[in-house]
Amino acid sequence: MTNPVTKDRRHFEDLRVGEVIELGHTKVTREMILSFAREFDPLPFHLDEKAAKASLLGGLAASGWQTGALSLRMLVDSFLSTIASAGGLGFTNLKWKTPVMVDDTIGGKATIAELRRSATQPQWGIVGIDFDIRNQKDQQVMTLRLSNLVDVRETGA
Amino acid sequence: MTNPVTKDRRHFEDLRVGEVIELGHTKVTREMILSFAREFDPLPFHLDEKAAKASLLGGLAASGWQTGALSLRMLVDSFLSTIASAGGLGFTNLKWKTPVMVDDTIGGKATIAELRRSATQPQWGIVGIDFDIRNQKDQQVMTLRLSNLVDVRETGA
Repeated sequence: MTNPVTKDRRHFEDLRVGEVIELGHTKVTREMILSFAREFDPLPFHLDEKAAKASLLGGLAASGWQTGALSLRMLVDSFLSTIASAGGLGFTNLKWKTPVMVDDTIGGKATIAELRRSATQPQWGIVGIDFDIRNQKDQQVMTLRLSNLVDVRETGA
Repeated sequence: MTNPVTKDRRHFEDLRVGEVIELGHTKVTREMILSFAREFDPLPFHLDEKAAKASLLGGLAASGWQTGALSLRMLVDSFLSTIASAGGLGFTNLKWKTPVMVDDTIGGKATIAELRRSATQPQWGIVGIDFDIRNQKDQQVMTLRLSNLVDVRETGA
């Protein structure tokens, strides 16, 4: 059964281990940091300049979950919206390495690290994608591996 | 050096492996799903009812990252805002097990699974927290382990 929404996109067979996806860049403003933190991560060092200065982070910093969400958005725009993605399975080894401060620009690349067919579901493959997110000083900000389902074009192949 | 913002909160020494944190519950509305997806995860099955019905998810479903962010918010309210948290280090083994559909209510518990002092930074300990997030039918929606820094009260101890 072909999904009509994604039938013209790249499928599992069209992906290659080692393929590098350029994620582009996103500037992280004070308003973005405050807005996300109010909704999802209302801790002092994400909301209040004075508390942030007293903290490990040394100043107002984005929630690590926001760094993840913004990186996901970059992957959607540059890759997931161009393949027959069937949804995320999870991720592992997410590490926040450097805080994202007001007006930092984050970006980087993602690499296809693994491709395998589902052992139980012949219509799907699993693509493992390694993120390497950096700031404008080329400091590594976050790494993680995402596992995502992608449709197989020729199930019997 | 005591952080003035968090000095009256529980510190590393006050936590115990096995402690269970009740996370409460959050209802996930259609508007929440659409709003988050537009900003961070604009894939058809998170934005469009018809595309969602054609997908694996079978209907409009929340971005897995939104499930994570909402679970983080519950942990902030019930736990992280009550301890001398110094920030998150990362996550591992995040698995999305059941999609979160319109008007599902998610909640659950988190358990302190691990406590250790930092090998290099005597002022911090690391708390490992296992999330068990379920929907209103008690189906497991998401699991993950968060690693979070927490201040040690008596660094010389």
